[in-house]
Amino acid sequence: MRVFNFSAGPAALPEEVLRQAADEMLDWHGSGMSVMEMSHRGKEFMAIHDEALADLHELLAIPSSHQILLLQGGGIGENAIVPMNLFGTKPRADFVITGSWSQKSQKEASKYGSAHIAASGQTADGFTRAPARAEWQLSDDPAYVHLCTNETIHGVETFDIPDLGDIPLVADASSHILSRPMDVAKYGVLFGGAQKNIGIAGVTVVIVREDLLDRAMPICPSAFEWKTVALNNSMYNTPPTYAIYIAGLVFKWLKKLGGLPAIEARNVEKAKLLYDTIDTSSFYLNKVERGARSRMNVPFFLADESRNEAFLAGAKARGLVQLKGHKSVGGMRASIYNAVPLEGVKALVEYMKEFERKGA
Amino acid sequence: MRVFNFSAGPAALPEEVLRQAADEMLDWHGSGMSVMEMSHRGKEFMAIHDEALADLHELLAIPSSHQILLLQGGGIGENAIVPMNLFGTKPRADFVITGSWSQKSQKEASKYGSAHIAASGQTADGFTRAPARAEWQLSDDPAYVHLCTNETIHGVETFDIPDLGDIPLVADASSHILSRPMDVAKYGVLFGGAQKNIGIAGVTVVIVREDLLDRAMPICPSAFEWKTVALNNSMYNTPPTYAIYIAGLVFKWLKKLGGLPAIEARNVEKAKLLYDTIDTSSFYLNKVERGARSRMNVPFFLADESRNEAFLAGAKARGLVQLKGHKSVGGMRASIYNAVPLEGVKALVEYMKEFERKGA
Repeated sequence: MRVFNFSAGPAALPEEVLRQAADEMLDWHGSGMSVMEMSHRGKEFMAIHDEALADLHELLAIPSSHQILLLQGGGIGENAIVPMNLFGTKPRADFVITGSWSQKSQKEASKYGSAHIAASGQTADGFTRAPARAEWQLSDDPAYVHLCTNETIHGVETFDIPDLGDIPLVADASSHILSRPMDVAKYGVLFGGAQKNIGIAGVTVVIVREDLLDRAMPICPSAFEWKTVALNNSMYNTPPTYAIYIAGLVFKWLKKLGGLPAIEARNVEKAKLLYDTIDTSSFYLNKVERGARSRMNVPFFLADESRNEAFLAGAKARGLVQLKGHKSVGGMRASIYNAVPLEGVKALVEYMKEFERKGA
Repeated sequence: MRVFNFSAGPAALPEEVLRQAADEMLDWHGSGMSVMEMSHRGKEFMAIHDEALADLHELLAIPSSHQILLLQGGGIGENAIVPMNLFGTKPRADFVITGSWSQKSQKEASKYGSAHIAASGQTADGFTRAPARAEWQLSDDPAYVHLCTNETIHGVETFDIPDLGDIPLVADASSHILSRPMDVAKYGVLFGGAQKNIGIAGVTVVIVREDLLDRAMPICPSAFEWKTVALNNSMYNTPPTYAIYIAGLVFKWLKKLGGLPAIEARNVEKAKLLYDTIDTSSFYLNKVERGARSRMNVPFFLADESRNEAFLAGAKARGLVQLKGHKSVGGMRASIYNAVPLEGVKALVEYMKEFERKGA
């Protein structure tokens, strides 16, 4: 029996992707090899790689001004890789702080230059807001402005993306990329670790505007220098081939569903169901401002926190797993990424109502 | 039908590892989840991770002075990560150049400090030797000495590892780690990308002597700083969970076979069969000195290079794939890693003899 998995990442994958991966494990399309065993230079894997990139281009409607790079190191790796790639001539950037992830990005960037905090969404209740553009106090001529467009831990999503003119906007979209259409042209750099909506941990998608490929610091490692990666079609070092294959299967699944507008409609419905359940009860609580509530990561608290363990145990007994909140926040968190079906959210809210009514 | 796959990496995996991965794809041990979907902080994945590390400790008989770290970025990533971790107080190192990989390591390290070439195995025939310790001209008090103990492209393996006393020896063992027992105590750092004998591309095993964990440059990215990685049990950033799971299955397979002494005996037999076939023929040629011939990567040439394409086409028709030599060397290369069975090498040498006798 498969559970409903609300993990923040690595996270649920579409069951049909897993079935196809299992079916093709020993012999991919008559090649006599597993995808795991293929040379990254061979024509079989090149076809898998190129098709995954083409599908991602199509899904996100990526303009020709931007390139997709596939790296390793995840979001935390990218926290260093971004400044190492953009601080070559101007070692300073601005950061909009909306939660733990943008905090980490700011701290890491300060190893390579000046990392100015332009705005913060911190309140007495923790990180509960997405500061609007009018609040951002940008410094003079920064190399870029960093924004985490969805904070996985605090459940804060930024929906209103400003146009910064000549200043490149760098977005860490790890935990909501592919959850809805995005206007990629607004971003200088858009990156995301794969282990939420893209596939499995170990590959990072970095979408870069081409004019930003030439600004690296000399100390940037070759394996992570975007220009080198771009010139080598993301094969300067051996890419994480199997993670790219799984991402490709997820992209096909998304296309078959109807692409990002279709998955957005599903995600809106799922999020509404869960937030409505929380809001119509005094038993559960979410502290994030309504306009900044994440559709992907829904942290919530029980009014009576002494019931937390009972809540989690009852959930697990019903096959609803990974609901414990991040240790820095406490309470609960339901991550309802693309691959978590509506049925999973329905099962969760039914359980929440039942628990409220009569306990686990 | 499964082929015999002589790819230099990503490379052949044991068929029983692939079968187990396929069987467990939708539900690992009754968890209701694929390993791909598991939180890296959950007890299921922690068990997989810890067991893989314990098995690797046992296989390599790693002394308590050394820790295993799991990183991303592969060997090429490590070419920068090593100096960034060891150049904190002494930004200089010595390099023994035995082929393309050590060349790349030396070039990348020179971005972070002085990278002195202590010896070179280059001859009129290319890289064909492993210079002995007596030839190494070490500089005064280097931070470390770098050696690629098996050059994947040139097929040069170093069997005689010197004791350097207080100078840490850093070895890139990517393409022969786990092919035979190694005396880990001799190395300050031993690293390897997984995509040869460990598992799939996307995870790098770095075995570090603990006293070397505290020598990083301030610009070393947190995700790649060994001390940070060590303090967080290789989970400072989300690890490539599925690649670690596959590595764990490979370690179990190796243990079941009898560990590294047993696989070494198999590898000696396979290599002897192939080199003997080359040496007893004037049709085929390997240029590497006999004492430095790699047991894992066997480059060879046809005396009549105009027959190359015919050789490769005939091989492919018999299910012997990925035999084309690296573009920088030409000719052929058979990589006969742990997971390539003796039957595969037998099929190859039979084909080579047949091709010599009568063509494809």
